Order: sequence, then C-alpha cells, then structure tokens
Amino acid sequence: MESLPYLAGASALAALVLAWFFFGSVAKASPGDDRMVFLMNEIQKGARAFLKKEYTWVSVFVIVLAIVLAFVIAPLAALTYILGAVLSAGAGYIGMTVATMANARTAEAAKHGPGQALPIAFRGGAVMGFSVAGLSLLGLAAVYLVFVTWMQVDDAFEIVTAFGLGASSIALFSRVGGGIYTKAADVGADLVGKVEAGIPEDDPRNPATIADNVGDNVGDVAGMGADLFESYTGSIIAPISLAAFALGITADGAADESVLNLLMFPFAIAFVGMIASIIGSFFVRGGDSTDSHALSKALHMGTNVAMGLTVVAAVGLSYWMFDDKPWGLAVAVVGGLIVGWALGKAAEIYTSDQFSTVKKIAKQSETGPATTVLSGISAGMVSVASSVILILVGVALAYWGGEQTLGFGEGPKSIPGGIYGIAMAAIGMLATTGAVVSVDAYGPISDNAGGIAEMAHLDPSVRKVTDALDSLGNTTAAIAKGFAVGSAALTALALFKSFQYAVVAAGGETLILDVGEVEVFIGLFIGAGLPFLFSALTIDAVGRAANKMIEEVRRQFREIPGLREGREGVAPDSARCVEISTEASLREMLVPGGLAVVVPLVVGFINVDALGGLLAGSLVTGFALAIFMANSGGAWDNAKKYIEAGHHGGKGSDPHKAAVVGDTVGDPFKDTSGPAMNILIKVMTIVALVFAGAFV
Amino acid sequence: MESLPYLAGASALAALVLAWFFFGSVAKASPGDDRMVFLMNEIQKGARAFLKKEYTWVSVFVIVLAIVLAFVIAPLAALTYILGAVLSAGAGYIGMTVATMANARTAEAAKHGPGQALPIAFRGGAVMGFSVAGLSLLGLAAVYLVFVTWMQVDDAFEIVTAFGLGASSIALFSRVGGGIYTKAADVGADLVGKVEAGIPEDDPRNPATIADNVGDNVGDVAGMGADLFESYTGSIIAPISLAAFALGITADGAADESVLNLLMFPFAIAFVGMIASIIGSFFVRGGDSTDSHALSKALHMGTNVAMGLTVVAAVGLSYWMFDDKPWGLAVAVVGGLIVGWALGKAAEIYTSDQFSTVKKIAKQSETGPATTVLSGISAGMVSVASSVILILVGVALAYWGGEQTLGFGEGPKSIPGGIYGIAMAAIGMLATTGAVVSVDAYGPISDNAGGIAEMAHLDPSVRKVTDALDSLGNTTAAIAKGFAVGSAALTALALFKSFQYAVVAAGGETLILDVGEVEVFIGLFIGAGLPFLFSALTIDAVGRAANKMIEEVRRQFREIPGLREGREGVAPDSARCVEISTEASLREMLVPGGLAVVVPLVVGFINVDALGGLLAGSLVTGFALAIFMANSGGAWDNAKKYIEAGHHGGKGSDPHKAAVVGDTVGDPFKDTSGPAMNILIKVMTIVALVFAGAFV
Repeated sequence: MESLPYLAGASALAALVLAWFFFGSVAKASPGDDRMVFLMNEIQKGARAFLKKEYTWVSVFVIVLAIVLAFVIAPLAALTYILGAVLSAGAGYIGMTVATMANARTAEAAKHGPGQALPIAFRGGAVMGFSVAGLSLLGLAAVYLVFVTWMQVDDAFEIVTAFGLGASSIALFSRVGGGIYTKAADVGADLVGKVEAGIPEDDPRNPATIADNVGDNVGDVAGMGADLFESYTGSIIAPISLAAFALGITADGAADESVLNLLMFPFAIAFVGMIASIIGSFFVRGGDSTDSHALSKALHMGTNVAMGLTVVAAVGLSYWMFDDKPWGLAVAVVGGLIVGWALGKAAEIYTSDQFSTVKKIAKQSETGPATTVLSGISAGMVSVASSVILILVGVALAYWGGEQTLGFGEGPKSIPGGIYGIAMAAIGMLATTGAVVSVDAYGPISDNAGGIAEMAHLDPSVRKVTDALDSLGNTTAAIAKGFAVGSAALTALALFKSFQYAVVAAGGETLILDVGEVEVFIGLFIGAGLPFLFSALTIDAVGRAANKMIEEVRRQFREIPGLREGREGVAPDSARCVEISTEASLREMLVPGGLAVVVPLVVGFINVDALGGLLAGSLVTGFALAIFMANSGGAWDNAKKYIEAGHHGGKGSDPHKAAVVGDTVGDPFKDTSGPAMNILIKVMTIVALVFAGAFV
Repeated sequence: MESLPYLAGASALAALVLAWFFFGSVAKASPGDDRMVFLMNEIQKGARAFLKKEYTWVSVFVIVLAIVLAFVIAPLAALTYILGAVLSAGAGYIGMTVATMANARTAEAAKHGPGQALPIAFRGGAVMGFSVAGLSLLGLAAVYLVFVTWMQVDDAFEIVTAFGLGASSIALFSRVGGGIYTKAADVGADLVGKVEAGIPEDDPRNPATIADNVGDNVGDVAGMGADLFESYTGSIIAPISLAAFALGITADGAADESVLNLLMFPFAIAFVGMIASIIGSFFVRGGDSTDSHALSKALHMGTNVAMGLTVVAAVGLSYWMFDDKPWGLAVAVVGGLIVGWALGKAAEIYTSDQFSTVKKIAKQSETGPATTVLSGISAGMVSVASSVILILVGVALAYWGGEQTLGFGEGPKSIPGGIYGIAMAAIGMLATTGAVVSVDAYGPISDNAGGIAEMAHLDPSVRKVTDALDSLGNTTAAIAKGFAVGSAALTALALFKSFQYAVVAAGGETLILDVGEVEVFIGLFIGAGLPFLFSALTIDAVGRAANKMIEEVRRQFREIPGLREGREGVAPDSARCVEISTEASLREMLVPGGLAVVVPLVVGFINVDALGGLLAGSLVTGFALAIFMANSGGAWDNAKKYIEAGHHGGKGSDPHKAAVVGDTVGDPFKDTSGPAMNILIKVMTIVALVFAGAFV
C-alpha cells in the first residue's frame, strides 16, 4: 500500500517519457516551406515572449507569497509552493513550445489528408496533456514522499497543500492573462481586419493575425493547461488534506493502518488514470475521411479507452483497498467520472449546432442582434440549472458512496466518509487529465494550422482539411470545460471542508458555518458578489486591451504604405502587435488576479466564519456564472458558424451580422471570464486552507 | 404601548382617506378632447381586462394554497392568507384605475405647463402609493389585533405571517405577468412599428400602441405596487415573527412586558413613516419651468420631507420605547433608511447619463452593438459589488445597533438583538413606502401622458412638457428599485432567520445550517441555480409573448387596407393586441411563478437543512442578479437616450442603432427578470416560514 506514491510517481515519469516521444514524433515531421516556417517561428516567438514576460511578472507575486508562507506557515511550505509554481509553469512552457511547432506541421501534413494531419495535431496536444499530468503527479508524489513518508516533518500536510497553492497561483494568472490576451488579439484582428479593412480572417496583411494565433496558444493551450494542472493537483490534494486535517494526524501518524488507505487511495486512482491515459493515447489514429463523425470517433477513441480502463481499474482498486465495503468508493470515483463526462455532454447539447438551442439562437438572429443576445443569455442561464442538477447527482452519489465505505464520521476526530467520497469523485473526473488535455490542446493546434495554411497561401484543399480538424475542437473544448468546471466545484467543496477541519486542527474552535449567523451571511453575500466583480473586471480588461490593439492595427494600415493593398514586399509590424497584446493583457491581469488572493486573506484575518461564508458563496455563484458564460458563449459561437454554413441567409446576411454580435459578446464570456471562475473559486479556497492555521 | 397597532391602523385609514382625496382631485381635472378620452378609455379597458383575467387565474392558485394552508397549518391562516391576497389585489386595482385616469388628464394639463401637469401625475401615482401602504398596514394591524390581541388564538403568529404569504402570492404573479406583458407589448410595438413600418413611437396607426401603454400600467404600476405591497407587509411581519418564534411565545404571551416592545416597535415605525409620508405628499408642487432640476426638486420634495420626518420620529420612538439603550435601534432604523436611499443613489450613478458609466456605454456604441452589450453587462456586474457593500453596511449597522439595545441573545429562548435590528432596518427602508410608491407610479403616468399626447396629435409643446416629466420617471424608478431590492434582501434575511426559529418553535431540533454539511450545501447550490433558471424562463417568456405580438401587428398592417398609410377613418384593432398580450403573458407567468412556490415546498418536505441552504443561496445570488439586471438594463436605456439627445451621432446613426440593441437586451432585464428576483427570494422565504411547522 505504501508503495502507491512510488507507483504514481513512476506512472508520471512514464507520462513524461511519452510526452518526450510525442515531441520527437512531432519534431521529425516537416514544417513545410519557408513561408510556413517563418510564420510558425513568429507565432512561437510571440508565444514564448508572452510566457516569459508573464512568468517574470508572476514570479514577483510568487516570491512575495513564498516569503509570507515561509514566515506565517513554514519555510518548507514556501519551498513546495515554489515547486508547484515552477512545475506548472514548466508544463505550460513545454506544452506551448510543442503546440507552436505542431501547427505548421499539421498544416503541412494536411496536404496529404486528415489521416496524416490528425495524429500530428493530437500528438502536439498530447505533449501538453502528459506534461501537465506527469509533472503534477510527479511533483506531488515527490513532495508527499519526501515530507510525509521520509522526513516526517511538522506541518507536513500543510506543506503538501502549499504545492497546490503554487499550481493555483500560476493557473490564476495564466488563465486570466492568457484569456485577456487571446480575446484582445482576436477582437482586434477581426474588428479592424475583417470589418474595417474588409480582408479575410488570418490574412497576412493584417498586423494582428500573428498576435491572434499567438493568443490561441497562450490562452487555449498554456492557460487551459495551467488550469487543468491546478485542477488535477487540487483534486489529489483535497482528499489527502481532508483525511489529514479531519483526523488531526501529522506525518508520523500517516502510516497508521486506519488512515493509510485514505491517504493512498488518491494516489492509486491517479496512478491507474495515468496508465489508462497513456494506453488510450495510442488508440488515436487518423482516417482518410474528412467526415466529422469519423474524425470525432478517431479523436475521442483515446479518451474513451482511457475512461473505460479507469472505470474498471477504479472498481478493482476499491475492492482491493476497502475489501470489507468496496462498492461505496467505487461508486464515488466512477460516479465522478461519469458526471464529468455528462457535464461535458450537457455543454455540448447547449453549444453544438446538432441540437435545438443553437438552432434556436440562429433563428432568433433573423430578428436582429438583440434577440440573438437575449436567446444566448437565456440558453446559458437554463444550462446552469441542468448543470447544477448534474453536479448534485455527482455530489449525492459520491457522498452516499463515501458513507457506505467509510461510515458517517462521528466525533471531532473522525472523517465523514461522504465528504471523502466527494473528494474522490473529483479525482475520478480528473484521473484521465492526460488524455482530456491532449484532446483539448489539439483544438488550438488545428486552429493555428488553418491560420498558417491561410497566411502561407496553401491550396484551399488544405484549409478544408484543417477546418474539418478544427471544427472538432469546439466539441472537445466543451467537454474539457465540463470536466474543468465540474471538478472545480467538487474539488473546491472538498478543499472547503478541509479548511473547516484545518481550522480545528490548528487549534481553533470547531468551525460551524451557520448561514443564519450574521458573519457567515455577510461572507456569503461578499462571496456571491465577487464572481460578478471578477467577471466585470475581466470583461472590461478584454475591452481595454482590444482597444489598444485596434488602435495599433489602424495605425499600421494608415502609416505603412501599400499594406492594405497587399503590395509585394510590404509586411505588417506583427511583432509590435504581439508586444501590445502582451503588455496590455499582463497589466490587466493584475487587479483581478490579486483580488482572488487578497480578498480571502483579508477576510480570513478579520473573521474566519465570514471567510467560510465567502468561500461557499463564491463557490456556488462562481459555478453558476462559469456555466452560464461558457455555454452562452459557446452557443453564440456555434450559432454564427451554423449560419455561416448556409442557414438563415448564410455569410454576410443580416442574420449573420446579428450572430457575429452574439459571438463577439460571447468571446470574453467563454474564453476569459467564464474559465477564470473555476480558478477563482479554487484559488480562494486553497488560500484559505493553506492559511487556516494563521487565521486562528 | 399596546395602542400602537390601533395608531398604525388609524394612520393607514388616514392614508386611504388621502388616496380618496387625491382620487377626487385627479377625477375633477379635465381629461381633454374626445380623442384623448377615447384613448384613455382604451388603455383603461385593456389594463382592467388584464388585471381581471390575472386575478381570475391567480385566484385558482390562491384557493389551492389556501386549502393547503387550512389543512396543514390552520384554517385561520387560510383566511388571513386570502385577506392578504385580496387587499394586495385591491390596492393594485384601485391604483391602476386611477393611474389610467390620470394619464389623459396629465396630458391635458400639460397644455398649461408642468406646473399644472406635475401635481396631477403625482396625485395619480399617490393614489397607488397610499392605497398600497394603507391597505397593507390596515390589514396587518387588523389581523394582529384580532388574532393576537383579542382572540389570542393558537398559532396566532403563523396566522399573521400567512397574511404576508397572501401579499407575496399576488406580488409574484403581478410582477412576473405584468413584467412579461409590458415588455412583450413594448418590443412588439417597437419592432414592427418603428423598425419595420417606419412610423414613430406611440403612433396611432400602430395596433400595439395601446397595448404598449397598457403594459406601462400593468407592469410599472400594478406590478410594482404589488411588489412594494409585499415588501412593506413582509418588512413589518419579519421582526414580529422573529420575536415571536425566537422567544417561542404565543398570543397569550404577546402582552408580556419583556416582549411587548419588540412586537410593537414595528407598528410604531410604520405609523410614523405613514404619517410622515402623508405630510410629505403635500409638499409636492409643480413649478412653471421644464428645467429638469427644478422638476426633480419639486417631485422629490415629498419623499425628502417624509424621510426626514421619519428619521426624527424614529429616533424619538426608539428613545421612548427603549429608554435604557435607545440609540442602538435608532441606528438600525435610520441606517436602513439611509442605505435604501444610498442603494437608489448607486443605481442612479450607474444608470443616469449624468455619470460616467452611461457615457462610457454610449461611447462604446461607436464600435457596434457587441461592445455596447458587453460594456452594459460589465457595468451591471460592477454595480453588484458596490450594492453588496452598501447592503452589508446596512446589515452591519443594523446588527450592531440591535445588539446595543437588545443584547446578544444567548440560549435557545432568546432573541438575538442583531437580527432584530436587521429586520427593523428593513422597516426603516420601507416606512415611507407611501411616498416612494407615489413618486414611482408617477413615472408610467407621465409616460402614458406622452403617449396620449402623441396619439391624439396634440401640439408638440405638450409633448415637450410630458417628456420633461417622463424623464424624471427613470430616476425615480431607479430609486424605488433601490428600496425594493435592498429591503427585499434585508426582509428575506430576517424572515430566513425567523424560519430557523420557527422550525425550533414547531418542535424541530435547533436548525444549524452549516454550509459544510452536504445537505445544506446541496441546498445552497440549488438556491444559487434557481435565480438563473428563473431569469431564463422570464426572458424566454418575453421573447415568446413578443413574437405573438409581432405576428399580430404584422398581420394587421398586411390585412387592414390603408392602415400603414394612415388613411382617414381606418383604425387598427388595438383590442386584439391587448388580448394577445394578456393571454400570452398570463400563460407565460405560470411556470416561473409556480416554481417559486413549489420548489421550496418540495425541498422543505424532503429536508429542512437543504431548504435553509436553498433560501440562503437564492437570497444572495438572486440579490446579485437583481442588481446586475436592473442596472445593466437601466444603463443601456439611458445610454440610448443620451445618444438620442444628440451625442455620438444622435438618432439614426450607427451608434444609435447599437444603443438600441443594448436597450432591447436590457428591457426584459430591468423590467421583467430583474424585478422578479426580489419577489422570488421573498416568496420562497415566506413559504418556508409559513410551512416551517409542517416540515418538521
């Protein structure tokens, strides 16, 4: 049993080896002609420049918080905190580097059909997927082994938890900064390029095109990767810290038979999920058809295999580790996985043009932009209700399952099995993170490949292949978002409960957060308001950053002679646009990012009950807003695409114009503010958990 | 001290006499020429038809719930429930009847300038204001005296509370049904009339114009009146039920010295607020200038006088009734009044074109509808944060104040002074309901007067006067909304706390709603999701009802020869439009309305802890959504008007078109879904409170 962290670490190493192998297989593919290589390099340069600058800025924040941690909690907590941050940043850097190599190579391979192109895009994405899962699990296993098993230091579990805070810090700024970047560049490129100058998307004359493609990588690859690095890390930490704080044990008690299983089970599920993801990744093969069903099947084969294997292995593990009452936790883990999948499916139903919601929004476009916007908003709001039901089914299943296996937990030093079950459900959702992120990162790579094909004037047949690959990306993004938001809710719930126990473990009174008490209620109110403020700040940030881009693009069209006409040898100053996006988005990320860390600290030091209320309020309202914004945005996006595919008058018609308005409103919803909610609720909870001892 | 309910009842009678006097003074003014009388009658007929039909439908609901109450709680509770419903409906009917008499008379008086017109519009509104406050307080005082003081029946306080549930039932359906009606008619009239047929607003050729004017009355007069009838009633019931349930007293203990003050203080504040409102109403006089500052000052003089007098009287009362520690509750009541006013001011700052938010949205209109929509959404979301801060200042002041006077309340049978303070703050906010509603109902009367001036082809100078009067209406609506939403939050919080005590009083265990417990958390999640679902349902309802209107207006333009051209003697079939709006909005109100009552009942019978979580979650999320929607909507509306006043290209320019999109999105936000949130959170809480005994 004690060997499980080693096994988990070994599986993480295997994942990293696989990532290395995929990197090699991407690298040896041809990146195409000079023009394509040039574009690829420009995108890569821009993306790297952004990440470097971002990490420089964030490192200041990380150092400050590390110093605080060293003094307030423990010096070793500062160390693991930094390790968590560095590994998350590293995964982002590696993944993005490969993603920006894979784009031109996918475009080049697309000349030979989707059978060649799909594996390259997938493997490019898989480097991200397995770097994220591998570095996270490796780091966690190492931290656990070193501080809990070997050194048995004081505050060992606080120190393990600080690793998660490191991951959260990077995720916070990557998601917010990357989200602002990608939409500012997108809006800037579209508004001046498509609307004002009347040139097509991804046209090489448009100075913002490179920045737009950089944005796909920093937002949808690096930002998303950091997000799931944090979710994955948090989901494994949650049951461990819950068990440790609820039972009030320290490192030297971690090997006791009564608690060992509880501490090892998370590693066990992570281990089998990782192995299953690795196996699954070999099942992704491209066919020769651009038929979307066939492509979708090929791409999802990897995730489906990984999930199937995880289900079987989780049941087996539960049977092995909890042999007197095995079924309960098996239900929790498998239930989590299924609910994660169902949340993704629900998102697909609300945002895919195969279903009625998107068709209805497209129809509403006939009566203008206002009805388009309203129908999208109401669709997103309705989807909140069904997602709440799904997540509550997951919570109920997991709670029931946990109680079946572990009992109710009476008395101050016992663990309520139900809450442990909820924490394990989150791991169930995220056990296949390697596979899920691989498929998700595939999306922006295909998108970029299309951009390069356009900018390098490749044959239209190539663009057709990349478009087919790209269109899958929307669905995969929806599914990944389902996992991200579902696991965020469950993880935050488990971490929230750990926080309650941590306060007790740190010598505080039992923390009863009665919402009828005025302190808790005030906290709940603040907590419900914060996600709205956070959304407003990020929406405005996109607007301001986009305005800077718009001005620059206009300036270039005005001041560079021959640019608009596409005169031979005249090139836009793309680097300047990249620079502006980088500067603006990083500056804009500071306020919302800082808020997420400072508010829980300030409230916590004033009143712990209020902090508890705040976390609960933010969790439920943030979840609701995240679902609302993601699904409204996704639905508008696909309604526009549905019209562009020839319905309701097609491209250029009035309904299309109305649908474009919906899509533009939805852009910061689904790619900036919505995803940032997941991080917000987890960051605040993990800040509270790590500092619980200091508050009391 | 025991005489206070009598005094309150007497002041309520005085208010009703005043309403009668104002009715007389409106009635004796000239309604103008035949054409104006005809239009006025059409509007009145439509509005009455709507109310009659609405009350018929709602009476089925009321009877069913009354039967349930009779069996589950007490037969007398069914009686007071019906009384509350009937009085609220009566106030709505009276108020709307007079409002629909005052419109033409205001237009006629506007021929002689604002000095003549303003008092008529105000007095028309004041009939509503004083009917609402008068019937509510009269009913409550009577119910209290009969069942608590005289008969001392069992369950006397449950029976008093049921009166509030009656008010809530009418408010729920009036707000939702009226809100759907007004926006469906508005959108229908605008979209086909202004956009498709190219005829101006309020043009007599447009078949939906009458329905649009009817909508102003059923939504903004009757709906708003029922809303504030319920708020006012609820705010008085909250501290009474809180004291009774927390102290576990029955009617025969209500005269004990230790509790008498607590039960009488609400009546005392209501009494002085009513007298102050009556006095204030005589301070409203019109000047001869159409300058908006002078008009605004004239109109608000009534409310300002009423509030000033209430502050002074509240301090005096607190000194008289709690002479050992008088200041605490004085702070609570006055604090509530000030915070209510500040919430209104905050709403004004976000929604008036005198301030930067609206100007910013207008500026964003230059880059198209998408940026208009986004900036409005973010403005609304930011306003949530500042409103949360304001309401929490009110909560903190009131809590502190209550504790100062009454102490902390230890042990199971004591009252926590802080919570009582919060309940009293809500009364502080609403004590001047008579004055506030008068000014609020003034808005749609002026709006209607403008419509009649247009339709009756009066001299443009008349329209100018009515426009000046109307433009004040937006500000007054914002202020009234501040009071409505602020008091809703505080009242719901106090009722929520009463619910906790009522469960104990009914023999249940002490209800500790620890958000860390899974049942409470599940409830919290459902509670956070419900306002989103409710919003989506009401937004969609407006869309569907508007579509039916659009089809009918198109049909009439197509099938009635000469209508569009305005041929002599050709009139549209306005009655048919009114009928369609009525049918559609009443049908659409059933699902969201039913949801608000059924969900808490179902959850409560399954698990009382979950119900507690649900109420808390809905309260905070519903408050946030209410503020967001009201202020986004208001800001878009005024950004459009700001552009129409000649900025950014003025009427007909592209920015104007973009602003119209924002305004249309905002219509159901601010007039349907947003206001419905206030009722949702209170209805659910009062349902829980009334049925608390049955749940355990």
